[in-house]
Parts: sequence; structure tokens; C-alpha cells
Amino acid sequence: MKAAIMGYGTIGSGVYEVLLKNTETITKRAGEPIEVKYILDLKEFPGTPVEQKVVHELSAILEDPEIGMVVETMGGTTPAYEFVKRCLETGRHVVTSNKALVAAHGTELLEIAADKRVSFLFEASAGGGIPIIRTLYDSLAGEEIREISGILNGTTNYILTKMYEEGWAFDKALKTAQELGYAEHDPAADIEGHDTCRKIAILTAVAAGKEVNFEDIPTEGITGISDLDFSYAARLGVSIKLLGNCKCEGGEAWMEVAPALINAKDPLYSVEDVFNGILVEGNMLGMSMYYGSGAGKLPTASAVVGDMIAAVLAGRQPKPFGWSRERMTVHAAGELRRRYFARFEGSREQKRDDVRETFGQVKWIVLEGQDEFAVLTGEMTEAEFMAAAEKVAGLRQKIVVRT
Amino acid sequence: MKAAIMGYGTIGSGVYEVLLKNTETITKRAGEPIEVKYILDLKEFPGTPVEQKVVHELSAILEDPEIGMVVETMGGTTPAYEFVKRCLETGRHVVTSNKALVAAHGTELLEIAADKRVSFLFEASAGGGIPIIRTLYDSLAGEEIREISGILNGTTNYILTKMYEEGWAFDKALKTAQELGYAEHDPAADIEGHDTCRKIAILTAVAAGKEVNFEDIPTEGITGISDLDFSYAARLGVSIKLLGNCKCEGGEAWMEVAPALINAKDPLYSVEDVFNGILVEGNMLGMSMYYGSGAGKLPTASAVVGDMIAAVLAGRQPKPFGWSRERMTVHAAGELRRRYFARFEGSREQKRDDVRETFGQVKWIVLEGQDEFAVLTGEMTEAEFMAAAEKVAGLRQKIVVRT
Repeated sequence: MKAAIMGYGTIGSGVYEVLLKNTETITKRAGEPIEVKYILDLKEFPGTPVEQKVVHELSAILEDPEIGMVVETMGGTTPAYEFVKRCLETGRHVVTSNKALVAAHGTELLEIAADKRVSFLFEASAGGGIPIIRTLYDSLAGEEIREISGILNGTTNYILTKMYEEGWAFDKALKTAQELGYAEHDPAADIEGHDTCRKIAILTAVAAGKEVNFEDIPTEGITGISDLDFSYAARLGVSIKLLGNCKCEGGEAWMEVAPALINAKDPLYSVEDVFNGILVEGNMLGMSMYYGSGAGKLPTASAVVGDMIAAVLAGRQPKPFGWSRERMTVHAAGELRRRYFARFEGSREQKRDDVRETFGQVKWIVLEGQDEFAVLTGEMTEAEFMAAAEKVAGLRQKIVVRT
Repeated sequence: MKAAIMGYGTIGSGVYEVLLKNTETITKRAGEPIEVKYILDLKEFPGTPVEQKVVHELSAILEDPEIGMVVETMGGTTPAYEFVKRCLETGRHVVTSNKALVAAHGTELLEIAADKRVSFLFEASAGGGIPIIRTLYDSLAGEEIREISGILNGTTNYILTKMYEEGWAFDKALKTAQELGYAEHDPAADIEGHDTCRKIAILTAVAAGKEVNFEDIPTEGITGISDLDFSYAARLGVSIKLLGNCKCEGGEAWMEVAPALINAKDPLYSVEDVFNGILVEGNMLGMSMYYGSGAGKLPTASAVVGDMIAAVLAGRQPKPFGWSRERMTVHAAGELRRRYFARFEGSREQKRDDVRETFGQVKWIVLEGQDEFAVLTGEMTEAEFMAAAEKVAGLRQKIVVRT
């Protein structure tokens, strides 16, 4: 099998490295060698071992009938979408790590692949090194999935871990993440939850077999989380994590990306630093959890290589994979009843009666020397919470409690 | 697809239940309905919905050309081995949950299946509801697996959890496990480690692509673990778990089934009760962990059903799967250097000089009112440990420390 890699950045060069380092294992599993013939990139990489393989035009790949497979690790949708589409249309398998592409154009690309009898695989697009997509699609094929909840973004989990364990402020944690290469120069996609949103959309679509429009998912990042929130969390013995959530019932989904309070007994509690953790509940299986490197060059590249081997083995007879054009009905998770952590300005004494009247029984948390107080509410919908909070007035923070 | 279930006990009836409950999902994923036409069992099940499907002779299945798939959930190797062999030889897919069968005869049965172009699948034979076998074989196909360590037996993990959390003695924990239906009337296979031994043998064989003889694996159960050991563990802030272990390098394996001290930072530490947890380290992936119901009727049955769907989809073109006839060289994990927890009779004062002389620097643990003391040693091989322990004399307990 002769392949091309489109985009020779962190992941693309990692794929090349994994193919070189584990050649023997990969050849044995795939039943034939997988050789990278071209690398498509804007840059030249002079003096490196791949120098002779670099091309700058997609046509070099499309016009070479030897190329049976293309790896897309460019990221973004332009020009990745056009490039991938043309590779599939000309009968090449495509393996990608690009969650933006899969979330935005997965349905169409899966259809083209099925039509051309080639594979379009994207294990590396969610969960990095955690083999969650194949698990959901193949291993749990007999399950009706009830819930997927995951820490799906290593950058934000690193930031929240440092805020929790070291007491750092958000800005310091973000700056350190950038210095360590975990966060991009423009960290918006990570810290505003967009990355997690696309990943939970992909996981839900694979599990349910229906298209999920990521734009339907209410998405909140971690920029509103302060060290003061972590002071309250420490008092409660809980942590705060950014979660992508989906609860399914009757073929519909209740979804959300948002920070959540997580107690120490929850398997997601101990997922630290840049690791990812994904919890899956099936109606027969019960609860299962998957944990591993969420990001990083080699873990993600390894997931790409696993897909490359699968594509070689499937050949011109790929199994059905992915989801149909049928659109999942996505509701806001806020329609479900859950508990909230909320901070209000003023003092407990001032507002005790208002809180009791609107929220009923709550757990109070008061920190020394603050002109505010916090409560843990009972179970309610988001609309009920907002109505009650408005009556109390002075809402400073609201974080859902994971149950 | 018309199927037969051989053995209508806990797992077999669970498979029937999952097929009924999730019919719609399963039919969609498999692309056709999967119908159970026969149930082979010694019993009759009068008055149940399966009454009309029960047969008592294998020939009823073999002679019906409609039967394309057989589920084996009898357990043990006699007559499961003969029955499965004949089903494969007559061109039926076989899906099994039977670790004893797979560990003892997997190589031969995989060869027959490949020869007849049918699937022989056994996801449910290790890790219960955790989809670990497909993950190792498919998703991590591009990895060189460095380590597999798992809590693979729900019964023993329940017993050890109760001893740790409730301070129960071994006998009380075992008796309760039996009353709850977690432990068999004859619990030897679980508590003496034989079940874990077969499972780690299967996982290693799948990961490495070589046959692993489970008889080569040094195996120790939990019958020697006392509540006194847990008193020391509590003092150290660690737990004790029964682990199946494999470390691989250069195509050879260092293996063991034995109780181990696990510290609170280890992802396996929080795997409690009847849950299983499996840690996998790959050379590119780094560390990953899989967690779920290790036993139980429906989780295990769900894994069987996942395999049934895969067999339908693969049809007469199954992908290569399993391992070759090449035998893995298995060394005792005791050849590797690791730390030990050891209890000796006598007092610290009496034996301080002997311990220092033979073990060098150790960490001492002394509990009030005991005629003994314990130490945590530095890293050494098992042979070095035993030689040193003999010089100190009075060894009462030795438990390896997981690192």
C-alpha cells in the first residue's frame, strides 16, 4: 500500500514516525507494507528524510495511480474538505485526525466513501490515543448507548488540573500550557469548548448512527472558571472538569459542553493533566470508562496508523461505518433536572430567606472574607434555576453538578 | 442469520435476552436480523419462551444447514472443545465467552476458522464487558504493546475490596461473595488465580500475535492474603489487588498472576467491587486504561452479541484475527527487579541488623501488638529477595509492589 500524508505538522510527522518505528508490527498486521510516497505540505523540509517526498499540489497525489490511501492531518475545513472529497471520489481510502472536518462534513464524506467502496476512518478525531470510536461502533454494536460523558480536551484539562492542584489562576495556567506546547497561540477552540463540542458530536453520531449537528449543542468553555470557584470546590471535596455530555433516550439526545463539578468517587475525577477520559453507559453493558493520552503527537498518530491498517485490511469491501443522513434531534441538557453550584453576591444572612423561598433546601458554602456565598441546589432544569436565581439576584457563577 | 446457543446458563440466557431487548439496534448494525433457532442444553426449560428451541444433541445444530453461527457459553473444555471444533469445521461462525477453551485450544480453533473462512471470536472471554480484545487487536494494531496489567476477576476484586474497605477477614468476604452469587460454590478457579491466568494469557496472545501457554505463567491467588496484610496496607495508604501482568520486550514476555500492593495514584487503585480494570501501555500510545463491569450476565452477553454482529458483517471474508502457532517465550515476572512488601516474625529490634545487611535500605512498618514487623524493600529480583529473606528468617508474607 502506497500512501500520502496531507499536512506534515505535529500529527502528520507523528504518523510518519510511527510507521517507521513500528514497521514490522504494522506490516504483519496489515499483511503488506504501508509506504509513504508523498507528503503534501506548503513547506519544504530540506535536509530531513522526507525531503524527496514533499509535493505542493494535490494533483501530484491524485494523478498517481499507485496511491491507494491518503492521511489528512492538515486540520480545519479549508482546504481539507475539498482535498479529502477528491481523494475519496478518486477511490482512495482516507484516514483523518481532523475533528473539525468530520463534525462539519462527516455525513457527506461517509456517503462518498461507501459509494466508492473505500474506507473513511477518523479514530484520531476524538479522544486522541483512546480507541473510543471503534469501541462505540464495533465492540458496543449490540448496545443502546444511554450516556457518553467525556473529558475530551487535554489543554483545558491541564489548565483545570493546575488550578485545582496548585491553586493557579486561569491566566497563569493558560500561559504555562502555552509555554509547554499544550495550548495553541490562539487557544479559543480549546478554552471556549468548541473542540470538545465537535468531539462529543462525533462520538454521539457514531454511537447512535445518526448525524449530529455540532451547532445544536449548547457550548460553554472554561474562561469563566476562577480560582475562587476552585476554593469552593476544595471545600466541597470536588473538582471542576470541562465535560462533553450526551444522554440518549428514545432516539433523541440531550447534550451540552460545560464545566461541571465532579465528586471524588466519579471515575472521571482522577483524569488529570492532558489525559482524556470517556465514560460510556450502555443499556446492557452498564458503565464503562476509557482513559488515555488525549493529545500528543505519537498517541494521536498511533490512532491514525491503526485506521490505516484497518483500511488496508478492509480493501474494497469496507464494512458499513459511521452514521446515516438522518439527523439526531438534539435537546439542551439543561432541559434535564440536575443540581447546580451557584455563587451569589451579598451575605448568607441577607439572602437566607430569598434563597429558601426560591430554591428550597440547599447546601450552603461560605468562604471567609468574601462578599458572597455559594449554594448547592436540589435537582431542577436550567430554566427553573435561572428563574430562581433571578429572584435571589446577584448571580455570579453557575456550574452544573455531574450526577 | 440463524444462530444456536450452546449452554443456556447465566451468559447464554443473557445473550438471548440482549438479542431480544436490543433487536432493532442489532438488526440495523448487522444489516440483517439475528435469530436464535436452537438452544443446546441438558435441561428443558419448560414454560419459558425458549422451550420450543431446546435441543439436547449437537447433531440437531450440525444437520441444519440454516444455522450459520453458534454461540458457545457452556464453559470448560469438555465437551466445549469438541463441539466448537465441529461447528467451525462445518463452516459455522463461533462466538464464545469461554476463557478456558480459548486459552487451551485457541490456536487450533483460530486455524480451523481461518481455513474455513469463518469467524472465531471471543471478546467476552476476558474483561467481561470491557471491549479489550478488539481494542488490542484492531485499534492498537500499529502499537508495540509494552505492558498489560489487569484486574481481570470480579470475584476476587470484590473480596479484596471488602477486606480493604470494611476490614473483613478473607473467609467472611468469600462467603458474602458466594451469597451474592459473585463466587461459585467451588471458588478455586477465581481465588487461586487460574481464571486471571487464562485471561492474561489470552490478552497477551492477542496483543503479541503469538500463542501463549497459560501453564507457563507463575500463578498465585489471594488465599494467602489476610486482614493483617490489609492493616499494613492501610498504614501505607495502598491497596492490594490481584493482577494479571505481562511486560513485553523484544518479542518475549515476563508474566505473573499475583496479588500486588497498589498505590493510590495508580489508575487500577480505584477499580472496586466486581469491576475490572485493564491498563495497556504501547510504545507510541503511552498508557491507556479500560474499566467496566468485569462479570455479570448482561455485560458479558453484550460482548458476545458484539462479536455476533461482527461475524455477520465479516461473512465469508473474515479479517485475520488472533495469533499464530509461534509460541511466546514466557519468563517469570520475578526475573524483573521490583520492590517487595514482606512480613517477618520477631521484632524490629531483634532483626534490624540482619535486615540491613541482607536487604540494605528498607521502609519499616510496625503495627502495635504484633509479634512481627514488615518492610518495603528496594528493587530486586525474586531470587534475590528469597535469598535475603532466608538469611533474615521467619518470612510470613511476601507481596510484590506494583510500579
